[in-house]
Amino acid sequence: MNLKFWKFVKVKSEISWLDKLSLAFAEYCGTVIFVSIGCMGSTFERSHELEMESPFALGMGVMIAMQIFGRISGGHVNPMISITSVLIGQLSVIDALCYIVAQFTGAFAAQIMLLLLLPNLYVYGTPNPRDGDYKFCSPRISAEMSGGKALGLEGVITFLLTMSFCGMWDLRNEKWIDSRPLRLGVIISGLTIAAWPFTGGFLNPARTLAAAAVNNFWEYCHMYLIGQLLGGVLGALTYIIFFIQLEPSQDVTAPPAEEEKA
Amino acid sequence: MNLKFWKFVKVKSEISWLDKLSLAFAEYCGTVIFVSIGCMGSTFERSHELEMESPFALGMGVMIAMQIFGRISGGHVNPMISITSVLIGQLSVIDALCYIVAQFTGAFAAQIMLLLLLPNLYVYGTPNPRDGDYKFCSPRISAEMSGGKALGLEGVITFLLTMSFCGMWDLRNEKWIDSRPLRLGVIISGLTIAAWPFTGGFLNPARTLAAAAVNNFWEYCHMYLIGQLLGGVLGALTYIIFFIQLEPSQDVTAPPAEEEKA
Amino acid sequence: MNLKFWKFVKVKSEISWLDKLSLAFAEYCGTVIFVSIGCMGSTFERSHELEMESPFALGMGVMIAMQIFGRISGGHVNPMISITSVLIGQLSVIDALCYIVAQFTGAFAAQIMLLLLLPNLYVYGTPNPRDGDYKFCSPRISAEMSGGKALGLEGVITFLLTMSFCGMWDLRNEKWIDSRPLRLGVIISGLTIAAWPFTGGFLNPARTLAAAAVNNFWEYCHMYLIGQLLGGVLGALTYIIFFIQLEPSQDVTAPPAEEEKA
Amino acid sequence: MNLKFWKFVKVKSEISWLDKLSLAFAEYCGTVIFVSIGCMGSTFERSHELEMESPFALGMGVMIAMQIFGRISGGHVNPMISITSVLIGQLSVIDALCYIVAQFTGAFAAQIMLLLLLPNLYVYGTPNPRDGDYKFCSPRISAEMSGGKALGLEGVITFLLTMSFCGMWDLRNEKWIDSRPLRLGVIISGLTIAAWPFTGGFLNPARTLAAAAVNNFWEYCHMYLIGQLLGGVLGALTYIIFFIQLEPSQDVTAPPAEEEKA
Repeated sequence: MNLKFWKFVKVKSEISWLDKLSLAFAEYCGTVIFVSIGCMGSTFERSHELEMESPFALGMGVMIAMQIFGRISGGHVNPMISITSVLIGQLSVIDALCYIVAQFTGAFAAQIMLLLLLPNLYVYGTPNPRDGDYKFCSPRISAEMSGGKALGLEGVITFLLTMSFCGMWDLRNEKWIDSRPLRLGVIISGLTIAAWPFTGGFLNPARTLAAAAVNNFWEYCHMYLIGQLLGGVLGALTYIIFFIQLEPSQDVTAPPAEEEKA
Repeated sequence: MNLKFWKFVKVKSEISWLDKLSLAFAEYCGTVIFVSIGCMGSTFERSHELEMESPFALGMGVMIAMQIFGRISGGHVNPMISITSVLIGQLSVIDALCYIVAQFTGAFAAQIMLLLLLPNLYVYGTPNPRDGDYKFCSPRISAEMSGGKALGLEGVITFLLTMSFCGMWDLRNEKWIDSRPLRLGVIISGLTIAAWPFTGGFLNPARTLAAAAVNNFWEYCHMYLIGQLLGGVLGALTYIIFFIQLEPSQDVTAPPAEEEKA
Repeated sequence: MNLKFWKFVKVKSEISWLDKLSLAFAEYCGTVIFVSIGCMGSTFERSHELEMESPFALGMGVMIAMQIFGRISGGHVNPMISITSVLIGQLSVIDALCYIVAQFTGAFAAQIMLLLLLPNLYVYGTPNPRDGDYKFCSPRISAEMSGGKALGLEGVITFLLTMSFCGMWDLRNEKWIDSRPLRLGVIISGLTIAAWPFTGGFLNPARTLAAAAVNNFWEYCHMYLIGQLLGGVLGALTYIIFFIQLEPSQDVTAPPAEEEKA
Repeated sequence: MNLKFWKFVKVKSEISWLDKLSLAFAEYCGTVIFVSIGCMGSTFERSHELEMESPFALGMGVMIAMQIFGRISGGHVNPMISITSVLIGQLSVIDALCYIVAQFTGAFAAQIMLLLLLPNLYVYGTPNPRDGDYKFCSPRISAEMSGGKALGLEGVITFLLTMSFCGMWDLRNEKWIDSRPLRLGVIISGLTIAAWPFTGGFLNPARTLAAAAVNNFWEYCHMYLIGQLLGGVLGALTYIIFFIQLEPSQDVTAPPAEEEKA
């Protein structure tokens, strides 16, 4: 256990401003990729009932972003992950702010690109945008869910998401990079499948806000954002307080998790 | 072959009580994750016929738990895996008991959290819980299955599950950690897809008992538990007696399985 | 290129008879696992139209067998793979014969186990076996396919299967073991999805023969077997003659495939 | 950042002509595999509505090609990837031309093999080829899409594809080879799922041209090709200019991306 997690938080980083810009640009591109692949996959549901394509497309979108940018900026594409990254001491506060601005900008850019690129029928639910009221890739909520339950559910899945990233960044796991994009992609598909009929499994404040703004559809949007913020921070803190490993040498894991001896 | 497997069984372990608690808490959290993601995915079937979402969600639930806790507590989330772990000599009997208590508690906690968090329609099959008789995420059994066949089928799939974990923990495989959560998640999805229309593919005494208790639905529950216990222990013993490798240096595998020479 | 591949073929191996028995038993168990998981997944189609569950279950069955036995016997579970293994010089002819006998026995055992374990409705298509004419997990063929096309198609997919194993066993790839069970499982799912509506994507003489015998349904069975044998051997020879790497040091691959420098 | 990327472009390579031939043959075989598995999977849609089989089969086809040929020729199977490979300095211009000729030939050969091997009903949409007008595995376009939007969409997904390959070939990632075929296969499935209802998600000039020629169906074909060419080259240039790492020692990535210290 580790009760002194605040000593992890960095304020300054030491990379140049040109590199910072390059990293923020990577986050921007990554979020464009995630949101556009995810939302294109989610127009599928219009024509039939199958509910697995959207969660798969969202997970695959994250996977593509992580495959390209995972070793450049970390491939966060989600403000909650950048905040987790600050809490765990990887990113300075300033850098995280750059990341987060890039992520919100990227999510907006992707939504707007899709409005221009896709046929109106798939975006507005009608060939003529003036008639349609289809909310494109925006937070919908099951009629049976209250706002509080939506907050709770988005909180739970974002909690699991930030915990998964903490686990991935843990000293004990940081060497296992090979299948990381696959694993994280499948985790996001899994969380989205679980929450799909209830809140749509948003997980990501940038995507939530961009979708709400583009569709001018604000119902429950604040509940989603509060849930994601609370759940995400709590998930990171839970992992940091109870499970994180401080020094590389001290390995308290059960035998299946032994370090490679080579 | 190895006929002296009992020498593997540990009675005492050497980690501190605080660490033990931390590991048990990891198993508790892992089981909450597995059961809640798996059961949320399984409410899908209410609205349509697609039978692949539930097995996928259950596999992804295990994958998330293994990604987060795999290098902390091993990510067992299943009493049968903890028992296998004792038989193979990884875990002491005392530690395994802590794990198992945490797993049962976690499965109950997850079921109760979902009752509170999800809309009644998805949990009880009706907006008003008093009317419903939907068994939420509980052992259902195909009308054509007898109790004995259910016992046999749960036994077969749990046999394969514990064998898979033994294979994963074998000295010959213990270095291949990178895609472990993915592989185990897909194995659990595969076993669940196979048994889905017959018993629901439970595999896990903690999930079985928690679901039966929460729904107060005990039919066949004992058959499931006996099948899982027998199948799981037999799977572990089969692997230990026939296939396990005792010393790290002696490699009797066929050439495709050669050790990395680096 | 390598035109002297016959020097690869081993006649004798040097492991003890007890170990040989253990390896053959591993192949037996692996084939039981593959056939039973695959065939249980294939009963799904009875109740609805979704055609992806069966290919997925078949791939997952191979994956489970490879996860458990991949580092013990190689996890062939398919006579064509054992023949490929002889051609590539990994296995002696005698050992391969033991493997193949174990594989055929395992496929029969799995089919018979499922007849006993599953409800009649799912196996015979009727609660009363005397009335049913459902061919359980047996080679079916699209009405539009001729026998010659079935031979060709099974040949093509078995060709790709043995090539994939040769690629996996190649000196250039033999270090990449971590995600092997996943990769091979997905490859088998892919080949089966491709051939599913035409021949069912059998790929495996042991499974083909066991299914034909248990159902006493021999139509086209010889075409399947000839196609698998020809395609499989040709695939192995093509890889050996054109692509195999003889000495570990000589790396003629393009830069993306450079050896790890560590 | 790196603004001098032209110094990367090679003109001559140093491997022998026999090896060049072997590599081109590998690309030929790889493209046959990708196109035949992908197109066989895409005949499924004829009989029912499920839209995930085709993208999965296409991704699995690439995966099989990469598993077999990834360490031989790189498993490009797509002219845009070979062009990217030239831009990034891996392949000489001459070698890339050999690759590209092999890829176009392979795509044609696969289409013709399927015409002969598959039942007419699945290829021509009718048992008698003279009546049918089904375009087999050819570029179809949603009625709501204009040619310009098709160009844009194919451009966007090919942009992401070449970026993904650049990311994979980057010095920072080149050690992570184990799950490469899986990751790239899933990325291609993801891009294809996203674009499926709009353009079919072609991504590959060789497949596009072969399908158009075999079906004698040229509508929009040039828009696809222009989109793929522009998008692909832009994707490669974007990565090279903004993100590529020049020297192996200089690591500017954020902490999660640290090099293995071993």
